[in-house]
Amino acid sequence: MGSTNISYNYNNAMARMVGKDGIAETELSGLQKRALAIHKDLQKKREEKIIGFFDLPYDNLLVQAIMAIANDIKRNFENFVVIGIGGSSLGPACLQRALNHSFHNFLSSQGRRGRPRMFFLDNPDPDSVKGLMEALDLRTTGFNVISKSGGTAETLAIFMHIYNVVQRRFSKTALSKHFIVTTNPDRGYLREVAVADKLKTLPIPENVGGRFSVFSPVGLLPAAVAGINIKNLLSGAAEMDQKCSKPEIMSNPAYLNAAIHYLADTKKGKRISVMMPYSDALKDVAFWYRQLWAESLGKKMEKGKTVKHIGQTPVAALGAVDQHSQIQLYMDGPNDKIVTFLCTKKFRKECKVPRVFSSIEALDHLANQDLGTLLSNEYLATEYALTQNGRPNVSFTMEEINDFNMGALLYLFEVQTAFAAGLYKVNAFDQPGVEQGKNATHTLMGRKSKEDRARMKQFKAYIKERKKYKCL
Amino acid sequence: MGSTNISYNYNNAMARMVGKDGIAETELSGLQKRALAIHKDLQKKREEKIIGFFDLPYDNLLVQAIMAIANDIKRNFENFVVIGIGGSSLGPACLQRALNHSFHNFLSSQGRRGRPRMFFLDNPDPDSVKGLMEALDLRTTGFNVISKSGGTAETLAIFMHIYNVVQRRFSKTALSKHFIVTTNPDRGYLREVAVADKLKTLPIPENVGGRFSVFSPVGLLPAAVAGINIKNLLSGAAEMDQKCSKPEIMSNPAYLNAAIHYLADTKKGKRISVMMPYSDALKDVAFWYRQLWAESLGKKMEKGKTVKHIGQTPVAALGAVDQHSQIQLYMDGPNDKIVTFLCTKKFRKECKVPRVFSSIEALDHLANQDLGTLLSNEYLATEYALTQNGRPNVSFTMEEINDFNMGALLYLFEVQTAFAAGLYKVNAFDQPGVEQGKNATHTLMGRKSKEDRARMKQFKAYIKERKKYKCL
Repeated sequence: MGSTNISYNYNNAMARMVGKDGIAETELSGLQKRALAIHKDLQKKREEKIIGFFDLPYDNLLVQAIMAIANDIKRNFENFVVIGIGGSSLGPACLQRALNHSFHNFLSSQGRRGRPRMFFLDNPDPDSVKGLMEALDLRTTGFNVISKSGGTAETLAIFMHIYNVVQRRFSKTALSKHFIVTTNPDRGYLREVAVADKLKTLPIPENVGGRFSVFSPVGLLPAAVAGINIKNLLSGAAEMDQKCSKPEIMSNPAYLNAAIHYLADTKKGKRISVMMPYSDALKDVAFWYRQLWAESLGKKMEKGKTVKHIGQTPVAALGAVDQHSQIQLYMDGPNDKIVTFLCTKKFRKECKVPRVFSSIEALDHLANQDLGTLLSNEYLATEYALTQNGRPNVSFTMEEINDFNMGALLYLFEVQTAFAAGLYKVNAFDQPGVEQGKNATHTLMGRKSKEDRARMKQFKAYIKERKKYKCL
Repeated sequence: MGSTNISYNYNNAMARMVGKDGIAETELSGLQKRALAIHKDLQKKREEKIIGFFDLPYDNLLVQAIMAIANDIKRNFENFVVIGIGGSSLGPACLQRALNHSFHNFLSSQGRRGRPRMFFLDNPDPDSVKGLMEALDLRTTGFNVISKSGGTAETLAIFMHIYNVVQRRFSKTALSKHFIVTTNPDRGYLREVAVADKLKTLPIPENVGGRFSVFSPVGLLPAAVAGINIKNLLSGAAEMDQKCSKPEIMSNPAYLNAAIHYLADTKKGKRISVMMPYSDALKDVAFWYRQLWAESLGKKMEKGKTVKHIGQTPVAALGAVDQHSQIQLYMDGPNDKIVTFLCTKKFRKECKVPRVFSSIEALDHLANQDLGTLLSNEYLATEYALTQNGRPNVSFTMEEINDFNMGALLYLFEVQTAFAAGLYKVNAFDQPGVEQGKNATHTLMGRKSKEDRARMKQFKAYIKERKKYKCL
């Protein structure tokens, strides 16, 4: 039985390290009273089962069921395709990239992995969807359709296309072999289809939002199929739950990191939250976090006539790659960012840099060391340079990238986000701002309600106006 | 002989569409005098060969040479690995994703493409580098090592590892079969190695910076190997060169888009430039642009005692995926962004959404249409919703995603960036802010110059300070 090993270092976010762009200790302690109230509110909502993500790591029965299904899939299929968008894709994709071999699909094609190739269809792009259907042998392909509401237009459109192909290629009864549906346990279109066609289903609890669903079947089934030990993953999350249980900001890493980001944004003008892993395996953690942070906190607050627009803009970066793309801006551009580094002490593989160009003295110091040493030193050097330039940053360092630590890290960010919403006084769990575009899409696709007709009229006027100026 | 077909629509960046957060026509015309001066300066530097990227589309002899080398590679190899970072990777990766089949590598493994699988090693991450080496059959693998200076630490470290593996597996003479080096024509470590080992080389002209090198051999060789018609690509770029040749802002799309972004940033608080393609194929254009915009404009200006920090932060997004991740923030969060949509009228493939769930009336309007129609309508709906909310945006729409249009689009963004640097009064072609971190890395890796020793001392003091507070 292993356990988690992650450290969190926030020194470089503090004024004593980065000067006026950093946070004073008194600013943190000044939030403690509010922190206590937010903590109590979150605990209450947890106990009353209003907020569901907190307790996801503890459902052992569900884990057994998921592992059984995953074993079936591993036996029956060479390809496993996740159909989902947003929280229904970012979580599973992030786990798969973090914990699987970097070239898993390629090795799997050579029969060297014993587990299906993993694909994620998250965009209703015909080039991708048709492209994948051209590439796969359908006989050995399983699909996991994921939508919390069961009515996500993009996911359903892709599903409808593939459902039809499978049904025509094989038979109506083959559907239950090829599709597993992860959705609301009680209602929604996907649930209706699953019941009618006797498809296997897994539940997404009503009180768990898409972006907080990585420890529900949304994340767990694809993870288990990819060969990730989901018991360890959840055990890491549960361990972090304990470590984030105190109401004191200074002894709760999730609350502390939330408070630092909140103060950085609202008091120090750090309107951008960069997450920069120094590891290809951790790359998609930044994309998962990007949804969590943006959608939970990016909100409009209306109080009488005053409207406030709230929320840091999260940016996903990658070290060392973005040293050759973004660091020039992070160093010399506006001091409007706080950077979160993610790194690992050990990499899974060793990759020595031998002394091959002996004539080139200037490269001598790179030789006889490991690529991992280079990458780790690049992280340290970049952190150092940013700090010297007064640019605030924090870091999470794992002993190694494993299932325990991934569970712990993602759980921490979820608690951090829920707590940050308390500081910002916004609802972390809604997304009212997406409705307007969603409705306009349905109108344009030909839905014909009364509202759609009115909207279409407005839209036509808009299109006319929009044509006024053209250049090129 | 085809030609380009792209339109640029900037109505939604203007005050008459988005109100006070938009740009007034007088603000654009107010820049015309400066535009003329910047135009003359750019023309002069083009003629004097100080800025080289402008003329890259016109070197026909080089194109012939590259195509001959690419044909050799296609005949000899099943895998082609680009080793490069920043501008030496983002350009070729962007072309390959835009113009190749979405699942090219997978199909290629089944012998269904007639061209090598394409890989990009851009990060000195041992899990990726060793991982790829485990997956590939070296006998049928070619490597293209790319570094403008010939001294990029990350690229050289990866190269040294693989060079050694190839040398030990085969022989010293096999090196010239497996490696092609793209670097400075006259000097640098890579050049020295290439000469000593008689490796094939291609030049990156001295006056072409990494982030402006996509139409040099950096972008062209991998593109040609991937089966992209590089003549058409360059012909599209040349056509855009013509379309961006006028000094008047209002009739030069590159200057106009630069002016709009400059005004949005400096007058309307739009400190973030989001690029949001609505097509998986165009996804990496946003990552290529992200380097171009950040590294060229993110600069420090010192005038006497006053220091100004300049530069929009570019953000790469993707439609429709990020409607389920970032649009909540873009709609309701701070109005500090200008969005550039990239889209295509035609997709390469058709992918019908059939009427399969006939009992579910609410989905009826999705049925019997193409996925491409859904994606295009989602773009329109999102653009509409943002505009209604007073959020400025512009759009580039291609008739289809082909080599001509890709050449034209990327060339336009290069001219736009060079011109924007004139407006911001910064040097688009340097990156002084990365030196500090680069030097610190060499120090940490054990380089032992006098400066390194001093730096190491400072660094040790820093590490001690940095340990002061820990939580977790």
